[in-house]
Amino acid sequence: MSRNVRFHATGDADVLHLDHVDVPAPGKDEVRIRARALGLNRAEVMFRTGEYVVDPAFPSSIGYEASGIVDSVGPGVEHVSVGDAVSVVPAFAMTDYGVHGELVLAPASAVVKHPASLSWEEAAAVWMQYITAYGGLIDIAQLQAGDTVLLPAASSSVGLASIQVARMVGATPIALSRTSGKRDQLLEAGASEVIATQEEDIVARVRELTDGHGARVVFDPVGGPGVAQLAAATAPHGIIVNYGALDPRDMALPVMDVLGKHLTLRGYELFEVTQDDERRGAAVEFVLDGLSRGLLHPVIDRTFVLDEIADAHRYLEAGSQVGKIVVTIPE
Amino acid sequence: MSRNVRFHATGDADVLHLDHVDVPAPGKDEVRIRARALGLNRAEVMFRTGEYVVDPAFPSSIGYEASGIVDSVGPGVEHVSVGDAVSVVPAFAMTDYGVHGELVLAPASAVVKHPASLSWEEAAAVWMQYITAYGGLIDIAQLQAGDTVLLPAASSSVGLASIQVARMVGATPIALSRTSGKRDQLLEAGASEVIATQEEDIVARVRELTDGHGARVVFDPVGGPGVAQLAAATAPHGIIVNYGALDPRDMALPVMDVLGKHLTLRGYELFEVTQDDERRGAAVEFVLDGLSRGLLHPVIDRTFVLDEIADAHRYLEAGSQVGKIVVTIPE
Repeated sequence: MSRNVRFHATGDADVLHLDHVDVPAPGKDEVRIRARALGLNRAEVMFRTGEYVVDPAFPSSIGYEASGIVDSVGPGVEHVSVGDAVSVVPAFAMTDYGVHGELVLAPASAVVKHPASLSWEEAAAVWMQYITAYGGLIDIAQLQAGDTVLLPAASSSVGLASIQVARMVGATPIALSRTSGKRDQLLEAGASEVIATQEEDIVARVRELTDGHGARVVFDPVGGPGVAQLAAATAPHGIIVNYGALDPRDMALPVMDVLGKHLTLRGYELFEVTQDDERRGAAVEFVLDGLSRGLLHPVIDRTFVLDEIADAHRYLEAGSQVGKIVVTIPE
Repeated sequence: MSRNVRFHATGDADVLHLDHVDVPAPGKDEVRIRARALGLNRAEVMFRTGEYVVDPAFPSSIGYEASGIVDSVGPGVEHVSVGDAVSVVPAFAMTDYGVHGELVLAPASAVVKHPASLSWEEAAAVWMQYITAYGGLIDIAQLQAGDTVLLPAASSSVGLASIQVARMVGATPIALSRTSGKRDQLLEAGASEVIATQEEDIVARVRELTDGHGARVVFDPVGGPGVAQLAAATAPHGIIVNYGALDPRDMALPVMDVLGKHLTLRGYELFEVTQDDERRGAAVEFVLDGLSRGLLHPVIDRTFVLDEIADAHRYLEAGSQVGKIVVTIPE
């Protein structure tokens, strides 16, 4: 029997339970993993509360990210073997697989051997954040040296990963954060500037920092009416890549910004990259290259143990973290 | 002396005057044209009222489209000669040139020899509508055979041109019109279906017409809160190309459509095509090919004479036309 995280109804963190489950042998193109660390994301919180793009079927497993040791492989799996240290790329729907647990199944296409230099905790904190950042910034917005990119909610794990990805290609990352409380941490994390959105005029500050041009790329997980200000701060021919709905209200777009500057707004989830063999391959290669060169290095805010899974969710929801929240599974 | 359309203040159509002006000899890379017909667009109305993307400096000339005979050419002009029948592509700012008048200057890069089969009226009705449609549908949205495209305000000159451009590449054009009053004319113009937006449920009808998929491309000159419905009617990975602000309010975009379907919204004006030598060249080639094969054929709703220029503006503003409004200049 394995203790895996499940929930039997949507709701607050109390709905999470460590159910004792029998995990079947891996089927064709599946891998069974003895997990050592789990990465926690806003996606799991939204899935738990019923606000995600897909709805859970109960009892529901949960979880996109884990690192651990291959326990067994199903027919057709050739790229990993029993005993390999691996981590899981979010390349599946949580209605099909959930990897938060002691012994978990994952589709083989989502299982990757990561650099041996990474700890279990770091390996569980790699794929969601870096592939999300890579997909939005590089695959879609084609961020390159000389570009400026605005990063709302910059202290999230994806925000910090985006700062590193931007630096890796020679672009200038400007961090947006609600207050100035995380300013020093964001500068230390590589942001060229920090704008406190509740304290400063975003548009005026971005203009000042870009010689009046605006930012060519905006990578926004917030949405809502605030998109209007981001559009005003975007450069002509620029692109706003939206990858989240922290503000669930309709996005507002002033037509004169959109038309006058020929702006693009693009909705993006990493699955369009991770579920396409070619694009996922390029993403994994980019991230492994950045990790091996030390240009990408996961920032872990805090770790919890598996028995504290509900506390870990609550801590993420409180929003005071700077970086990734990881749950460890002691041997 | 030439009688050219000018205005000395923004306002209703009464601000338009036929001023007697001395038109200088064409400068370097300029062509002077004895105009025979003028194409009228919503852009001129918005420029006149002060609601356009650029503001007039008074006294202001006006006008993007004209056909006529080359009267003289400036230094550096080689592709047209005195006596050639030509028409003008909107490839300039109205703050620099305005071609509504008897004798007008245009930049050489905007002057094209059109097929001899076109009348002056037709030649004045070609470039704005077909390059706008080509740029949005082909250059940006890459519309192709099998695609469905939604066309709000389909009875405008650009709407009708878009129906023809869609048909030319084998796509299915669905016309949107406020009421069912123009239904028969739109079907006759080539629309596969007509949806009366004030009488029918757009989203339900589009789903029904597309086996539930939605339209891959939306080409929208309206904007405003109505964009939310268009987003709901767009297929996964689809694109909404916005090319106008008939509704000047902020566009509303439901985040779950944008994120869940990875939608793209793109602001577009034809100038990004006409002011780029390569893209303009491809556009002109596409349109000339369509005209010569009879697949593109300008629909002219009504003609006025130059002395009725204010009436022509008023008629366009009233919005009952189906097709292009042209102003002729008797010899």
